[in-house]
Amino acid sequence: MRFSIFSDYSLRVLMYLGSKQERLATIAEIAQFYGISENHLMKVVNQLGTLGYIQTIRGKGGGMRLARDPKTIILGKVIRDTEKDFAIAECFNEHSACRIQSDCALQTVLSSALAGMFSVLDKHTLEDIIIKPNMIIQFIKRQVVDS
Amino acid sequence: MRFSIFSDYSLRVLMYLGSKQERLATIAEIAQFYGISENHLMKVVNQLGTLGYIQTIRGKGGGMRLARDPKTIILGKVIRDTEKDFAIAECFNEHSACRIQSDCALQTVLSSALAGMFSVLDKHTLEDIIIKPNMIIQFIKRQVVDS
Repeated sequence: MRFSIFSDYSLRVLMYLGSKQERLATIAEIAQFYGISENHLMKVVNQLGTLGYIQTIRGKGGGMRLARDPKTIILGKVIRDTEKDFAIAECFNEHSACRIQSDCALQTVLSSALAGMFSVLDKHTLEDIIIKPNMIIQFIKRQVVDS
Repeated sequence: MRFSIFSDYSLRVLMYLGSKQERLATIAEIAQFYGISENHLMKVVNQLGTLGYIQTIRGKGGGMRLARDPKTIILGKVIRDTEKDFAIAECFNEHSACRIQSDCALQTVLSSALAGMFSVLDKHTLEDIIIKPNMIIQFIKRQVVDS
């Protein structure tokens, strides 16, 4: 059982941006920090912009930053916004062919289980998971030394 | 976000067997009932046997039945037994390359979220989701008429 890579990377981008609001970050920098693909991050960043979580400033010296205070970004909301669906079993699927769908108690139990998960995620904000600024400072220092 | 097909089908087999403990069921019958592949079900049934959830009787007139009272089969346990892992984000993966893994609060939050989900699943047993016997009786009657 897992979230999509899209949700995973969305959380990582927000965790990174949350820890350094004083200056703009770039996709290249975040990709290097996590050791993940810039191409994947590009789509994630675009979507986070559309969803109003981040602001991007184009051009030389451009980059991105959080659009909102980390305390106001609820993790359950981020996951709801970034996961494609919560069809945790076939019966949740809109086009499900299951013949007992109309009279199946499994769907009710699984919906409650999802609600149990979100009741935890909705109690946490980005503030709880932002990366400690010194981790990023050390990383950037190493990049400067290496270059 | 979804469970594996393996977990999904495992739950369906148990839900079916739970509703008709008086006689043996076959893989072909369950596959037809749900409109799913016999091949997929074969692996699921083998695994459920190994895990001690069902008993299979080989030979002519053979088939399978639940090995235990549905009231004693806890849904959270079934999911734990049938899901390959609960690496809901990259950081849960044993071979994760994430550089902040050692100092990342996301993992803690996601673990709590999983616990929230299981706290619900652990409150339910197979008894709560077994298929109403009359649905299966109607299905079998239709099969007899059609054949």
